Amino acid sequence: MEDKSTIVVFSGDLDKAMASFIVATGAAAMGKEVTMFFTFWGLNILRKDQYVKTSKSFMDKMFEKMMPRGPEKLGISKMNFGGLGAKMMKYVMQKKNISTLPELIQTAKDLDVKIIACRMSMDVLGITEEELVDGIEYAGVATYLAEADQSKLNLFI
Amino acid sequence: MEDKSTIVVFSGDLDKAMASFIVATGAAAMGKEVTMFFTFWGLNILRKDQYVKTSKSFMDKMFEKMMPRGPEKLGISKMNFGGLGAKMMKYVMQKKNISTLPELIQTAKDLDVKIIACRMSMDVLGITEEELVDGIEYAGVATYLAEADQSKLNLFI
Amino acid sequence: MEDKSTIVVFSGDLDKAMASFIVATGAAAMGKEVTMFFTFWGLNILRKDQYVKTSKSFMDKMFEKMMPRGPEKLGISKMNFGGLGAKMMKYVMQKKNISTLPELIQTAKDLDVKIIACRMSMDVLGITEEELVDGIEYAGVATYLAEADQSKLNLFI
Repeated sequence: MEDKSTIVVFSGDLDKAMASFIVATGAAAMGKEVTMFFTFWGLNILRKDQYVKTSKSFMDKMFEKMMPRGPEKLGISKMNFGGLGAKMMKYVMQKKNISTLPELIQTAKDLDVKIIACRMSMDVLGITEEELVDGIEYAGVATYLAEADQSKLNLFI
Repeated sequence: MEDKSTIVVFSGDLDKAMASFIVATGAAAMGKEVTMFFTFWGLNILRKDQYVKTSKSFMDKMFEKMMPRGPEKLGISKMNFGGLGAKMMKYVMQKKNISTLPELIQTAKDLDVKIIACRMSMDVLGITEEELVDGIEYAGVATYLAEADQSKLNLFI
Repeated sequence: MEDKSTIVVFSGDLDKAMASFIVATGAAAMGKEVTMFFTFWGLNILRKDQYVKTSKSFMDKMFEKMMPRGPEKLGISKMNFGGLGAKMMKYVMQKKNISTLPELIQTAKDLDVKIIACRMSMDVLGITEEELVDGIEYAGVATYLAEADQSKLNLFI
């Protein structure tokens, strides 16, 4: 079976996260096995939106505080203007009845898209498992490469 | 036939747009069927440079005004300094006789590269068909995935 | 042989450079032939860290001075805050015993990852061969496309 689709989600921007999930859910709806591998800033998409108490080093706390907590807090990659651009985009999408990022994430889960958080990036940014949403897997680059090797469609977003 | 090349052009930066068209025209020149799927900020590359009168909501007008109108107005992804960096890069390229983005776009059309604008992104950003250049197609993620499925080379830029 | 892995390294950000080399060295360690094609800002990753005397036009000198000289000088793509973010990330990685970018580059060389600098981008940014590290190759988009054509895994980072 070499017909999977695998997407590395490196970016934590709302617009790129949306693009990732639109491709992933589209491919899954067409019957493909899809794996999304979340790394670096992409991990923020998987963060729980509520505060999680953890014991961390000072530096890890700094990253934790400065990075957005979950899909509702993401900025957009252009014209964000301190979050205003993201608000505008979400407002417009709601008006036009376009699926929001949290809805796309739910659809991905319903379609059995495999969601993997990159352990090494979690280590770099000091993110713990308790801070990420449930129902995901944890793995490293070897797992990513094994999935990619079985995939016809490979993207880095 | 599974030997196509398909590029998602998500970015609307001059440098990334150039990279997209250099790969696309290179592959087409080598005899490949090439599809470029323009989504989100990438749509700005396809905008006509003159103003097009449209009736839009206030929010859609905002996006229209703030986004660059066509290849000559794009910034670069690093060191843009309010457009100065893009000017510098274009000046240097002209001096050195390197193809400009508008020339690359023309070459792509001459080589029958298929240029598709993403309908959903047009909807999100409030961009209408009249605002985009002629000779392109309009489609959604299903069309992208069908092209990608027939492609050996898939990139997201 | 169509089982290679080819990565276009367009970005010159520390975090994306690390992601590129982690994928490249991982794939090479699994026995794949890997090619990394460095273009635009990605060329900065290959710059020698010491100053190299060259005779250049004023514009080329401007780019030379403004762009980071080698892997130790790169910023990160988010929350860089004038280099502070990159320093934080490097500090944290050292504390946690995670390979640094210079170490990953060395590993890539040891594993015979093919490192190619894009001639056209060097021309655009005015970068000369003497300014780049030893042991790399120089080529254009045709070479990239030939490698990509033999690759199952193609990424643009």
